[in-house]
Amino acid sequence: MNKTLIMQSDFGLSDGAVNAMYGVAHSVDHDLKIYDLTHDIPPFDIWEASYRLWQTISYWAEGTVFVSVVDPGVGSTRRSIVVKTGAGHYVVTPDNGSLTHINRTEGIAEAREIDETVNRLPRSGESYTFHGRDIYAFTGARLASGVITFEEVGPKLDVNSVVSLAVKEPQLKQDETEGMIDVLDVRFGNLWTNISRDLFKQIDIPYGGQVEVEIQHGGRSIYQNIMTFGRSFADTYKGEPLVYINSLDNMAIAINQGSFAKAYGIRTGSNWIVIFRKITDK
Amino acid sequence: MNKTLIMQSDFGLSDGAVNAMYGVAHSVDHDLKIYDLTHDIPPFDIWEASYRLWQTISYWAEGTVFVSVVDPGVGSTRRSIVVKTGAGHYVVTPDNGSLTHINRTEGIAEAREIDETVNRLPRSGESYTFHGRDIYAFTGARLASGVITFEEVGPKLDVNSVVSLAVKEPQLKQDETEGMIDVLDVRFGNLWTNISRDLFKQIDIPYGGQVEVEIQHGGRSIYQNIMTFGRSFADTYKGEPLVYINSLDNMAIAINQGSFAKAYGIRTGSNWIVIFRKITDK
Amino acid sequence: MNKTLIMQSDFGLSDGAVNAMYGVAHSVDHDLKIYDLTHDIPPFDIWEASYRLWQTISYWAEGTVFVSVVDPGVGSTRRSIVVKTGAGHYVVTPDNGSLTHINRTEGIAEAREIDETVNRLPRSGESYTFHGRDIYAFTGARLASGVITFEEVGPKLDVNSVVSLAVKEPQLKQDETEGMIDVLDVRFGNLWTNISRDLFKQIDIPYGGQVEVEIQHGGRSIYQNIMTFGRSFADTYKGEPLVYINSLDNMAIAINQGSFAKAYGIRTGSNWIVIFRKITDK
Repeated sequence: MNKTLIMQSDFGLSDGAVNAMYGVAHSVDHDLKIYDLTHDIPPFDIWEASYRLWQTISYWAEGTVFVSVVDPGVGSTRRSIVVKTGAGHYVVTPDNGSLTHINRTEGIAEAREIDETVNRLPRSGESYTFHGRDIYAFTGARLASGVITFEEVGPKLDVNSVVSLAVKEPQLKQDETEGMIDVLDVRFGNLWTNISRDLFKQIDIPYGGQVEVEIQHGGRSIYQNIMTFGRSFADTYKGEPLVYINSLDNMAIAINQGSFAKAYGIRTGSNWIVIFRKITDK
Repeated sequence: MNKTLIMQSDFGLSDGAVNAMYGVAHSVDHDLKIYDLTHDIPPFDIWEASYRLWQTISYWAEGTVFVSVVDPGVGSTRRSIVVKTGAGHYVVTPDNGSLTHINRTEGIAEAREIDETVNRLPRSGESYTFHGRDIYAFTGARLASGVITFEEVGPKLDVNSVVSLAVKEPQLKQDETEGMIDVLDVRFGNLWTNISRDLFKQIDIPYGGQVEVEIQHGGRSIYQNIMTFGRSFADTYKGEPLVYINSLDNMAIAINQGSFAKAYGIRTGSNWIVIFRKITDK
Repeated sequence: MNKTLIMQSDFGLSDGAVNAMYGVAHSVDHDLKIYDLTHDIPPFDIWEASYRLWQTISYWAEGTVFVSVVDPGVGSTRRSIVVKTGAGHYVVTPDNGSLTHINRTEGIAEAREIDETVNRLPRSGESYTFHGRDIYAFTGARLASGVITFEEVGPKLDVNSVVSLAVKEPQLKQDETEGMIDVLDVRFGNLWTNISRDLFKQIDIPYGGQVEVEIQHGGRSIYQNIMTFGRSFADTYKGEPLVYINSLDNMAIAINQGSFAKAYGIRTGSNWIVIFRKITDK
């Protein structure tokens, strides 16, 4: 364990919830390094929680412990689990799909269910509503600091039993690739697809070339236009749309210094389809 | 002292104010652990500052120093104080009511007025407007790191002279309990009352049972309905209201995956009354 | 180097971008202290990035390394640089004007261009869009932790070649001073001018005295009124405007517990002129 704990939630930073989790973790071990991923996941949005974990986890050292608390089912029978990923990271989370992206990338090497008779903050009272503080932050801190081993989290689970959300797989067809809008680059309004650079390269469009972009929602075409495939925003004029490779090596769509998502009312999820189409002479 | 400093303010995180306080504290002692409670207290809202201190302080170890700067009276004759709580925490704050909740729970064991001739950032200029940086962060960091003792903060004060805001005390009547809406669970729109679990239990409603909830504002009834007393949100359908025990062991009201506060325009404070009433056969 | 890294950007905290930068820095050296200045700079607002650096840098110890990533030109030919300031701080930034204020205050003692063949995160792929993570956070962390010396950043530059934005210089005329609105105190809506306390003092208005304030935009008078020059907000009634010395020893304008900026639609920049005028008997 490397004594580093990363927290993510949909709690926001406007009240005391995140600080209470910090206090619990800090009380377990004053020497823990505690950092935030984000606490601004839209309320109950498990998909985005899964995406943000995947977006960041590979930039942290082996042994780093992530605590992710987006938990619409708190108090239900959903399991509380800790997984060890293929790359040696740990994630403490409700078993509700928050590991969907990581499961498809780093993979899950081993999974354990938290034994709440042992791994629960002492004197945490009758509240059934704040497992983030009483179970997840507490267990994550104990694991990160070496107070407990991974084995002491609780009984081993079948890794195939870990819940995953449905994903629209990216596809290659003749002269086009199709995928979904995975997430928004919130601040700038850019669209991040799940079509990888490698897949896109197979339709053979060079940097600076033109590509047709179509966006469909629920089977209906929402946007269809030709734009430049640029190395970066610097390759286009202000206000011009472009296709580029984002910081996770996937294809993305933007308006230079504008918000593509706002301009066309685009959202995310498996019913928002993106098609990149090679322009051919007819 | 445990070398841990927690900061709270109404400054937000969009400018450099909080970072300047961090810089001052870090310059006092590079080994301090510095964390945020929240900096998103609504501007000048002393009541909420008081609530957030109480919400979190018990999750931190004895000797932890809190700095709270919600200070509509900066530059006036309001005192700057440091208190030691009954549980051995320290709070550095303007003496304006920010300790109302802590005074009623942990209690105040000892209070001292900050001697600004000693405990003020050297060369902090003629500005009278940023005591958070020049006095509170500086004094808090010196206390947390052991540069000064609690006695060296300044002269002792009568603990009964520390300012408290008015509170509407929760009451038990026949078959009902009455209290106020203390604060909102901002992100989710839930109402947190000051009626404790123990008081509520005296009207004898079992988990899963029904309870009548009335909300009054300025003497007028705003909401009156019957809902379930649930262990957690999982006990209700989406969109259904419920009464539950919050993470501070007080009674709370929510709509499952909705915002109760927005739905009915509910705010907080001592003129927002909540009544839980047992349903009796007539 | 003092092993302290401060990050600023316009990325917001709602996605994983800032956390990925933290992961990169933490992987360079687990013992780094990493803090945020703010990540809420308005998108692409180089002027405000420059202002926030200046607002905070002097509160940090010599040797502290700042990473500032407000970078509308990412992927263009703009240089990536590290400067050592006159006071011994380091700033890692695109060379786009983000050092405008520091250049005029602490000054730039030495500047170097980042050699990206050495100072770039290994395996950072084909993305040209996230230099904050792959170059700036990586280089800043290596410099702060002593993995590289300042000389090893890359080749030395002429300090006079570092880009600065245009500034409207404050002026003293007979019985008045004129300057610009440098920035807003965002949370409270106060106007912060670039007119120093020292310059203002030359028109000789005592604390508690009256001063005429005029605000012009694009040559047109937007606001003209007489208000009090107060030590602090406590010197005025709620809702009353006042002139005061802000926490950076410059002149500022506020409405006590209101938002001056919102009330009169005031923005910032060199075409927003402020004039403080002594009231004379005629």
